[in-house]
Amino acid sequence: MALLFLSEADPVERWRKALLTEMPSLDFRAWPDDVGDPTEIDIALVWTPPPGELARYPNLKAILSLGAGIDSFMSDSTLPDVPLARMVDPSMTRTMADYVLTSVLRHHRRFDLFEREQRAGRWTFALPERPEDKTVGVMGLGVLGQAAASMLKDAGFKLRGWSRSPKELDGIETFYGRDQLAGFLAETDMLICLLPLTDDTKGILNASLFATLPKGACLINAARGAHLMERDLVDALDRGHLEAVTLDVFDTEPLPASSPLWQHERVLITPHVASYCVPETAAKGIVANIEHVQAGRPLHHQVDRRKGY
Amino acid sequence: MALLFLSEADPVERWRKALLTEMPSLDFRAWPDDVGDPTEIDIALVWTPPPGELARYPNLKAILSLGAGIDSFMSDSTLPDVPLARMVDPSMTRTMADYVLTSVLRHHRRFDLFEREQRAGRWTFALPERPEDKTVGVMGLGVLGQAAASMLKDAGFKLRGWSRSPKELDGIETFYGRDQLAGFLAETDMLICLLPLTDDTKGILNASLFATLPKGACLINAARGAHLMERDLVDALDRGHLEAVTLDVFDTEPLPASSPLWQHERVLITPHVASYCVPETAAKGIVANIEHVQAGRPLHHQVDRRKGY
Repeated sequence: MALLFLSEADPVERWRKALLTEMPSLDFRAWPDDVGDPTEIDIALVWTPPPGELARYPNLKAILSLGAGIDSFMSDSTLPDVPLARMVDPSMTRTMADYVLTSVLRHHRRFDLFEREQRAGRWTFALPERPEDKTVGVMGLGVLGQAAASMLKDAGFKLRGWSRSPKELDGIETFYGRDQLAGFLAETDMLICLLPLTDDTKGILNASLFATLPKGACLINAARGAHLMERDLVDALDRGHLEAVTLDVFDTEPLPASSPLWQHERVLITPHVASYCVPETAAKGIVANIEHVQAGRPLHHQVDRRKGY
Repeated sequence: MALLFLSEADPVERWRKALLTEMPSLDFRAWPDDVGDPTEIDIALVWTPPPGELARYPNLKAILSLGAGIDSFMSDSTLPDVPLARMVDPSMTRTMADYVLTSVLRHHRRFDLFEREQRAGRWTFALPERPEDKTVGVMGLGVLGQAAASMLKDAGFKLRGWSRSPKELDGIETFYGRDQLAGFLAETDMLICLLPLTDDTKGILNASLFATLPKGACLINAARGAHLMERDLVDALDRGHLEAVTLDVFDTEPLPASSPLWQHERVLITPHVASYCVPETAAKGIVANIEHVQAGRPLHHQVDRRKGY
């Protein structure tokens, strides 16, 4: 089995070592310098390949994403019609849940306020409500959304969740579909977006959604930049309807220096660090999928291209 | 039983209501306007009373602190020699543990770095180590320290603790006494101070202690301002030995506008909000102690004045 590794963001040598430890027989080829004969490539393990690149491998049998979101693949009209799997790995799930908890606690304990006040040299005493009296709403109840919701529930918050199709989750009030979106938002004090990016969800974090949230709500977007209408967000913050936001993802990354978000005192920008994959823990799942390809079985975590996630 | 309530920081009417709900017969007197005959006062429920004030009540049988720390009482040489109890309440314990977790996660997930970088308009990618590879050290293993350590352990960090006398705690490597302080510090990546303030612990967070921590360590002080030598701290930050600190307590509170800490970009100042008492949950414990006084029994959480905590 020849595997093409293609990512400009991930550490190629750590991945090579981690995969070969799990599967010594693997023929690991690193893009762009060590690809060899393109007809020999069986599997591509990739993150944001250049459009058209994957079409160069005529015998490709499967594409494995290095990320949880696969929206960047769907925009490539030349993407080979082979099974595509997203990354589901305990390290990605856990780092995302930790990131969401960190962001929620930072808003909840008013560290966002204290940071602003400190810059102004002001001692402004403020205590939070009890977590039990605060509702966190999670949009997107896949592996990452469920893990984040569960961790926040354990931290004492009231939890609700919204997804495309109905879900039943222990201790979490669930809503689904466009019809129930307003009801979900109306009592959400802190909104977490962990949706997949699809035609349906693009731009969903917009003026109308913000207006449905209670005054003083906070937003955390750790999904994709294209979920968010940035101008609507800045407007909702400046009018005082939203209290503060944490953004990990942006339409263009790195966020351009010209973006007004950099200097907005109620916005915290983190550089797409919410969820990340540790090669040493993810290698086992990748190798399991390689073996599924070898055996002609369906992939784990295979994407439904029609739904887009 | 007549109880004198004296605090300029706590909400007197919420306390009155909470205590009377638990003990309708209580004679609640609010300082300074509603004290009545000082000889009638049996119990004082207080936070930072003016020095000498408690000596005015000749029949006082007990002093109940509204705070977990009682160092402010010990500096009053006229303090009546009656039993003194510190506040131990689930809400104080839990809010402290939450504060410590919030601070630790903020440093761990590099939000401190991202905040600095954002102000400079810079996208600086940085991933943390795994929590399992990071050691958090808690100084002070009383009720608050144990609760914080336990919560941090559940969050995945390696935990160690240091206290005056030996303690055995599940899953936490413990050290005690001055002799073991250097060994405790040498592998502590994130140091939490939750010590009581005594003659022994005053100024303990000083240049010598910082030098014993590994380079790049973080510090969180949620105990008392007098534990910390501020100039030593600023020096350790400016030399790059310490990475960042979170301070909730200060020698003078509110922190004076002239303090250089306000503008230090590696210092987060929070306005003494780490631990706080919710009257509705604390009232039961207070009433239990009032009943102990009535029955002539020892107080719960009585302070050993010789040790100072």
